[in-house]
Amino acid sequence: MIDARIIAELKATLGAERVLDTPEDRVVYAYDATWGEALPDVVVLPLSTAEVSATLRIAHRERIPVVPRGAASGLSGGAIPISGGICLCLTRMNRILEINPDELIAVVQPGVVNMDLQRAVARYGLFFPPDPASWDMSTLGGNVAENAGGPRCLKYGVTKDYVLGLEVVLADGSVMRTGGRTIKNVTGYDLTALFVGSEGTLGVVTEIVLKLLPKPVARRTVLAVFDRISDACAAVNRVITSGVLPLTTELMDGDCIRAVQSQRDYGLPTDADAVLLIDVEGWPEALEREVALVRAACETAGAREVRCARDEAEAEELWAARRAISPALAALGDKLGEDITVPRSRIPEMVERIRAIGRTYGLRTPIFGHIGDGNLHPYLICDRSDAAVMALVRQAAEAIFLAAIELGGTLSGEHGIGLAKRDYVARALDPLARAHMLRLKHLFDPHNILNPGKIFAETEG
Amino acid sequence: MIDARIIAELKATLGAERVLDTPEDRVVYAYDATWGEALPDVVVLPLSTAEVSATLRIAHRERIPVVPRGAASGLSGGAIPISGGICLCLTRMNRILEINPDELIAVVQPGVVNMDLQRAVARYGLFFPPDPASWDMSTLGGNVAENAGGPRCLKYGVTKDYVLGLEVVLADGSVMRTGGRTIKNVTGYDLTALFVGSEGTLGVVTEIVLKLLPKPVARRTVLAVFDRISDACAAVNRVITSGVLPLTTELMDGDCIRAVQSQRDYGLPTDADAVLLIDVEGWPEALEREVALVRAACETAGAREVRCARDEAEAEELWAARRAISPALAALGDKLGEDITVPRSRIPEMVERIRAIGRTYGLRTPIFGHIGDGNLHPYLICDRSDAAVMALVRQAAEAIFLAAIELGGTLSGEHGIGLAKRDYVARALDPLARAHMLRLKHLFDPHNILNPGKIFAETEG
Repeated sequence: MIDARIIAELKATLGAERVLDTPEDRVVYAYDATWGEALPDVVVLPLSTAEVSATLRIAHRERIPVVPRGAASGLSGGAIPISGGICLCLTRMNRILEINPDELIAVVQPGVVNMDLQRAVARYGLFFPPDPASWDMSTLGGNVAENAGGPRCLKYGVTKDYVLGLEVVLADGSVMRTGGRTIKNVTGYDLTALFVGSEGTLGVVTEIVLKLLPKPVARRTVLAVFDRISDACAAVNRVITSGVLPLTTELMDGDCIRAVQSQRDYGLPTDADAVLLIDVEGWPEALEREVALVRAACETAGAREVRCARDEAEAEELWAARRAISPALAALGDKLGEDITVPRSRIPEMVERIRAIGRTYGLRTPIFGHIGDGNLHPYLICDRSDAAVMALVRQAAEAIFLAAIELGGTLSGEHGIGLAKRDYVARALDPLARAHMLRLKHLFDPHNILNPGKIFAETEG
Repeated sequence: MIDARIIAELKATLGAERVLDTPEDRVVYAYDATWGEALPDVVVLPLSTAEVSATLRIAHRERIPVVPRGAASGLSGGAIPISGGICLCLTRMNRILEINPDELIAVVQPGVVNMDLQRAVARYGLFFPPDPASWDMSTLGGNVAENAGGPRCLKYGVTKDYVLGLEVVLADGSVMRTGGRTIKNVTGYDLTALFVGSEGTLGVVTEIVLKLLPKPVARRTVLAVFDRISDACAAVNRVITSGVLPLTTELMDGDCIRAVQSQRDYGLPTDADAVLLIDVEGWPEALEREVALVRAACETAGAREVRCARDEAEAEELWAARRAISPALAALGDKLGEDITVPRSRIPEMVERIRAIGRTYGLRTPIFGHIGDGNLHPYLICDRSDAAVMALVRQAAEAIFLAAIELGGTLSGEHGIGLAKRDYVARALDPLARAHMLRLKHLFDPHNILNPGKIFAETEG
């Protein structure tokens, strides 16, 4: 527990109303979107970089853990204060500081919600490509901390591809600026990239310069139904080699199809092994051609049915089924969602491995994912109150991680490592790379106060 | 000078024919594409990661500087062995190890020439977006070391956006793997990005996993003539806000126009203040619209003339003038090419500053650049044999650097810092960011043997 003297100092520094230390306030900040929980000793709600800096100076002096937190929609336990200490909640630093349509950039505070930025820049005909499923609640600070992805990353890349510069408060409270406001910038090492995806373990991001793009005017949606999931994977390869880089290539397997159909009729055949939802985006006249190429690729790959939405409303209807997956799976039981990525050509094999693991452990394993970029989200359906089942779930999850690594993939495509996967990092990384990551952690945070215990199970001292 | 014993050890390790120590061999490796020169003590031509590793183990043990080198087409002095030591020339590690069209990746050794990769992947309908002007000679290892750009980076981003993973030999000869083969990968810190653009000061890249894209099938070229360069800048903003992200937005100022016209008639008006060359790329039917939007944007911004190439041959003719700039300027005298980047909205002001600096120092300052991404290449025309003029050139170059920084830009957009700009880095970076870069350098290269004296004028130790 943090000494009362420190709480008093934090209150004197930030104002008592933004330093929460009652049990009922603290419990609200014990969670993220995983099943983990741990109480922070105190919650601090800064309004400015200066207040973040002041908080970290105190924490650094007193060796108190600091866990940065945005909307806590994270799926790897990154925002859970497992060592207690200070929950540094950045949601009140939520101002869009600048939108510059001539330079295609926005400057934001970390607490700005992804959707709020999207809406603000849409007024200028612009958009910000990263679109995690949590986009309507997750903060850009959280997106940067996790290097968030989303369905449209196949075409546009991930969060790191859109961060031009950062203001970061370091462990000792000092304030550092990295990068700049230009796409091209080769002055010195790319510290910006080092902080993106560092999950709050190297510093606290307090300002972000983001690259924007002009928003394409039209979008078309194609749904293709397959009797074999491997044919769906082949179809995506055919689409891309035909010269089309789709916006999304969303896969739902038979389990997901049946789960959503059991909720209401989305018009999907429950005997299919997979459906693909492929969106293309651009100028209307080009989309005619792209839709035709997508249709041809799917048919050649063996689709039993291909539907092209004729308008927005039909596209919405096709997407409604995709969006219904998560709530529909919840009706099957508790669900543990995973997030592995393999090279695209290994997806059929990875799907087989997941299904075999499900059989071995007697678990249902519905799968969906953004297969264009190799990112699969298998779910393990379970009962959290049954300790024996949960032991099997842990074994099955581990087997899935190890299969992904074995197939040349990675532990996490877009959810981060956090707590959930830290025990597997040693198997996923080159030992020398991991050793250097620990040395970097030690260099930036010598007392290990910044989100301790995340990403790596151990420290280097 | 390196001890003869070490030379003998290198010869025993790599074979005498790939360890060059005669004066006539060494002098060949004293240069890059700048005016700097310095003799290496010995030149080593490894064929494998193991040989790079063996060389570095010796260098590390003996504290001998190692300067990695590709084609030496660099424009910032990065490959010049200013402290002597070993020139580690990687041009013989030039195999394309894999092209995987299903995964949209290529795996290459560092000595592969950019153009050779482009040709190899074109057979699969793919391309590698970074296109430095030196693409027909520069190596991908050099492109990675400098985080190379090129004209089409506005649309596609720079080299770092296409590097998924690396094999790096560290200062002590140990071999580290970073990243992987997938677009999405959030397992641990992004070491890959730290090495891209590090100019051979943190490690020697021996294998590169690159992201590829499907090659667009059609391209159109528009040339627009302006009486005021500021109108050309406004035109580019209008193009982008109209929803078109061009492939290139190349600017030539009046001095460049007159220089190329003095060589032969490219059909450019010598009384114009600027021409813009805008290329768009995609499906043919969409390009009709994009060309119309580009034309409208240029006319609204005040272009006195807009020409749209009707076919490949006409497009080639328009581009011939752009490609003639560098040789045409060489006819005016010696030329020092610069590489600053400013936020796009500051380009008109930067152009005015460059012109004023030219007047102040009595120097001609023709300007061209990739203005969509804010990257300008002003040239200083001079006489290298005239010491008084060269003193003015140095002052003028410094004034240009400082103006770019003052306008929110950066010292280098795509050429790197190397030797040429290391004395200005302290003014371009946040002091804390620079201090941490030096700490990173010390962490990876404690004895400062890797390309010493580049990027930073001093070391941390």
